[in-house]
Amino acid sequence: MSNDDPQMNGAESLVKTLLESGLDTCFTNPGTSEMHFVAALDHVPGMRSILVLQEGVATGAADGYFRMAGKPACTLLHLGPGLANGLSNLHNAKKAGSGVVNIVGEHAVTHIELDAPLTSDIEGIAGPVSHWVHTSMSSTDVGADAAKAVHAANIAPGQVATLMLPSDTAWNEGGEVAAPIAPAARPPFDETRLDAALSALSGPDSLLLLGGAALGEKTLEVAGRIAAKTGCKLLCEWANARLERGAGRVAIDRVPYPIDQALETLKPFKRVVLVGARAPIGFFAYPEKPAILTAEGTEIINLCDTSQDITAALDALCTGKDATDTAPAQIAASVTPDKPSGPLEPGGIASVLGRTIPENAIVVDEAITTGRSFFPSTAGAPKHTWLNNCGGSIGYGMPVAIGAAVACPDRKVMALVGDGSAMYTPQALWTMAREELDVTVVIFANRVYKILRGELTNVGVTNAGPKAMDMLSLDRPTLQFVDLARSMGVEATQVTDCDALELAIETGLATKGPYLIEAVL
Amino acid sequence: MSNDDPQMNGAESLVKTLLESGLDTCFTNPGTSEMHFVAALDHVPGMRSILVLQEGVATGAADGYFRMAGKPACTLLHLGPGLANGLSNLHNAKKAGSGVVNIVGEHAVTHIELDAPLTSDIEGIAGPVSHWVHTSMSSTDVGADAAKAVHAANIAPGQVATLMLPSDTAWNEGGEVAAPIAPAARPPFDETRLDAALSALSGPDSLLLLGGAALGEKTLEVAGRIAAKTGCKLLCEWANARLERGAGRVAIDRVPYPIDQALETLKPFKRVVLVGARAPIGFFAYPEKPAILTAEGTEIINLCDTSQDITAALDALCTGKDATDTAPAQIAASVTPDKPSGPLEPGGIASVLGRTIPENAIVVDEAITTGRSFFPSTAGAPKHTWLNNCGGSIGYGMPVAIGAAVACPDRKVMALVGDGSAMYTPQALWTMAREELDVTVVIFANRVYKILRGELTNVGVTNAGPKAMDMLSLDRPTLQFVDLARSMGVEATQVTDCDALELAIETGLATKGPYLIEAVL
Repeated sequence: MSNDDPQMNGAESLVKTLLESGLDTCFTNPGTSEMHFVAALDHVPGMRSILVLQEGVATGAADGYFRMAGKPACTLLHLGPGLANGLSNLHNAKKAGSGVVNIVGEHAVTHIELDAPLTSDIEGIAGPVSHWVHTSMSSTDVGADAAKAVHAANIAPGQVATLMLPSDTAWNEGGEVAAPIAPAARPPFDETRLDAALSALSGPDSLLLLGGAALGEKTLEVAGRIAAKTGCKLLCEWANARLERGAGRVAIDRVPYPIDQALETLKPFKRVVLVGARAPIGFFAYPEKPAILTAEGTEIINLCDTSQDITAALDALCTGKDATDTAPAQIAASVTPDKPSGPLEPGGIASVLGRTIPENAIVVDEAITTGRSFFPSTAGAPKHTWLNNCGGSIGYGMPVAIGAAVACPDRKVMALVGDGSAMYTPQALWTMAREELDVTVVIFANRVYKILRGELTNVGVTNAGPKAMDMLSLDRPTLQFVDLARSMGVEATQVTDCDALELAIETGLATKGPYLIEAVL
Repeated sequence: MSNDDPQMNGAESLVKTLLESGLDTCFTNPGTSEMHFVAALDHVPGMRSILVLQEGVATGAADGYFRMAGKPACTLLHLGPGLANGLSNLHNAKKAGSGVVNIVGEHAVTHIELDAPLTSDIEGIAGPVSHWVHTSMSSTDVGADAAKAVHAANIAPGQVATLMLPSDTAWNEGGEVAAPIAPAARPPFDETRLDAALSALSGPDSLLLLGGAALGEKTLEVAGRIAAKTGCKLLCEWANARLERGAGRVAIDRVPYPIDQALETLKPFKRVVLVGARAPIGFFAYPEKPAILTAEGTEIINLCDTSQDITAALDALCTGKDATDTAPAQIAASVTPDKPSGPLEPGGIASVLGRTIPENAIVVDEAITTGRSFFPSTAGAPKHTWLNNCGGSIGYGMPVAIGAAVACPDRKVMALVGDGSAMYTPQALWTMAREELDVTVVIFANRVYKILRGELTNVGVTNAGPKAMDMLSLDRPTLQFVDLARSMGVEATQVTDCDALELAIETGLATKGPYLIEAVL
């Protein structure tokens, strides 16, 4: 690629710059203002462009792609409303520390002031979910702006960068391809706190709380050595962007979601060292319950936040404890749960998962209430990767599964999704079919926003009447997920017991392309 | 309702205040932070609460409700991400001048600073689509804030008001019901321009361009008298929030969407008077084409904008022209198009619509390219109401149909929707089934983002390759709308010719509750 083609338009310089900066995947639902970018896909080879039917699928897919590819994808979105549709999954991506480069078409610079129907404050819409926001003002700037966007997205652990591209900056000539900007190194962890952290980690009343990049296979192994040597407990946050687990790896439990269980779990610890994790707080506030989940008086030492050099922090702890030759604690043994039978309930489902998760699988977990008990029964499954929703906005599961499958075409993806969550971004199924992605989707159909039934009590509602309960219910009419899947070209089946679920998962995993299982609880 | 119940919590004061201010309909997808509002539905009678599966359905429904009920509904949304999911249809509502009161749950005031997973800058997300944004800080303020929100939403023609309700302001006691704030009157039109407007309207080279409240039956009749007396032409904007039409009413054409047709339509006019309409501009900018659609040198007189007293402006023109006793021009005769046959194409479909639109129907038009030629063949149908998308963000049609059907339970609603648009908010079908709404949905399945095929050429892309065309195509895999409808409890059929379409529409209209027709082009 060269910069000296005077006839290169802004859109072509954009695509070429993205490619030179290492981005080669684009999730898109384009409109008129993005037509030159779309046209450039044919003139500039190398960019895989994947069509989605709604932008929430694009942004969620970019999130999943980053988690598994370790580099950003871009999205191509149509003006403010297109960005708006993708906003909640960008919120999730931001909270997960996923790098995403959003390219948002805008009206031609001279057209914006006319306030056409699709005109909106795009920078205003982008701001709350973006770390970096910029509007290109000329075709000559587009390349350089794109390189800056990629650089911003790559800042550890990963950031959301949103670049607005007015249509005239795309169609005008004078585009210049920009060289990649070298990625910023992770800043060092806080060495001034190392001694305190080393003192803190001693005995079962001390906790090493991990998050972010601490949850890779190698870093967990280091943490396992520290735990073995010091007797400290290891936990990770409830929601993790990416957690490596399975037989042979250091198994780590999560701080539970339910407030009372979380308080109980954290109560024993007098000293907590944070590496890549934040101090535990409640997902929500509840009347008469604390928001800080650690016991009062607990000493919390934030050694390394999620953007800093987590590997170095764990190595320093391990060396400081003279644990480099210690065998790691909590190595998961290979365990196959007994074959469950009977109607579907969380325990049986967890056993089926423990029996079926294949080597090297990627599990996208949006199973919400059904999934709370999945961890113990799956800890001894073959090595796999587990992805959580870090932003709490539902509708993340199937889109993230798309991105994971695109990033890792040789790995099986399992998306475990609650029925309420699945209905947020059902359009994801179509893109799975279109791209023949190897995703087995399991929908847990309890036909209720079950998490909210529990939350009613937690927030102090003791007298919920029929109207209130009706607002939490999904059973009128009953959603038919097999029909839904077929409507978008995805093969599907419905199961109601553990035997059928196991068979269906095996079928799904053996099927090339996507497969959906409606598991009726 | 009284204010002197010291145990009333903020949520109850909110619901009571909304009811006293005239709001009795709520479209919702609630979460934990909204549980007290949900609980209050049972304690405070009178609020109809309608569950949706994704927030874009809620905000679109509120838009449609306002257009037909003439008063706002409220939405109840879960934190920033819930609001974000509803943002694009709020954009459409804002552009349509629809009043909407969004109630957005927020974390408890003390919890916000902890930056929990679902924490976001909600006011920042709300700003770009709202005229009024406020966060309640105490349970004692909630009632008064709600009354202000309703007042803001009712400012003509209608505004988007977004009120954030931290969960502790909902659950704490001390709630006070606030009295309704008297709605603001529409400001007067610009009388200083009346003489110029009167002079301008004379002969076929003058145009009276109407929009907003000018498109009611009575106001159109006044415009018809002015046209009859002066020989001026009547047109309305391409997109109209609500247009009354059909046999016996003054028929009015729209300024076409395609840029070349719009330029051609507006070319003859040397003088344009605007009443409730904005000066015509292109939906998008196109290279080498003007953004201002009127011919160069055209005199444009903005007599009355969409928020001002449109009825008075038209009356003043009519009186000034001494046309109050003149018979209106362009009264549509009752015409039934000849029965079309053969495969479905836009002309035949338009004829079928002209033959089937029932008296008093509400037609929600998101038919995009297929629908561009619907007007001539339907002008002589029985009296009906036509709703357009004013903000250009697709996915508005089925949600708006929900709101229209809820507002007008005795009227038949027809939602005419392109396949690409329908896939933005397919969850709307479930709410139609749940609420047994009398909506006949016709999906025009051309299996392509057809509008973009045209736009490629308009923006100067002359060499689109296969990758580009693939990004505009919906045929891999083929969407099966009958399965989609059934998955959400809606009866459905597929048709491929005009005879079958007519029969299917008659069936749909005769069916109680929703009915979906996939019309394959």
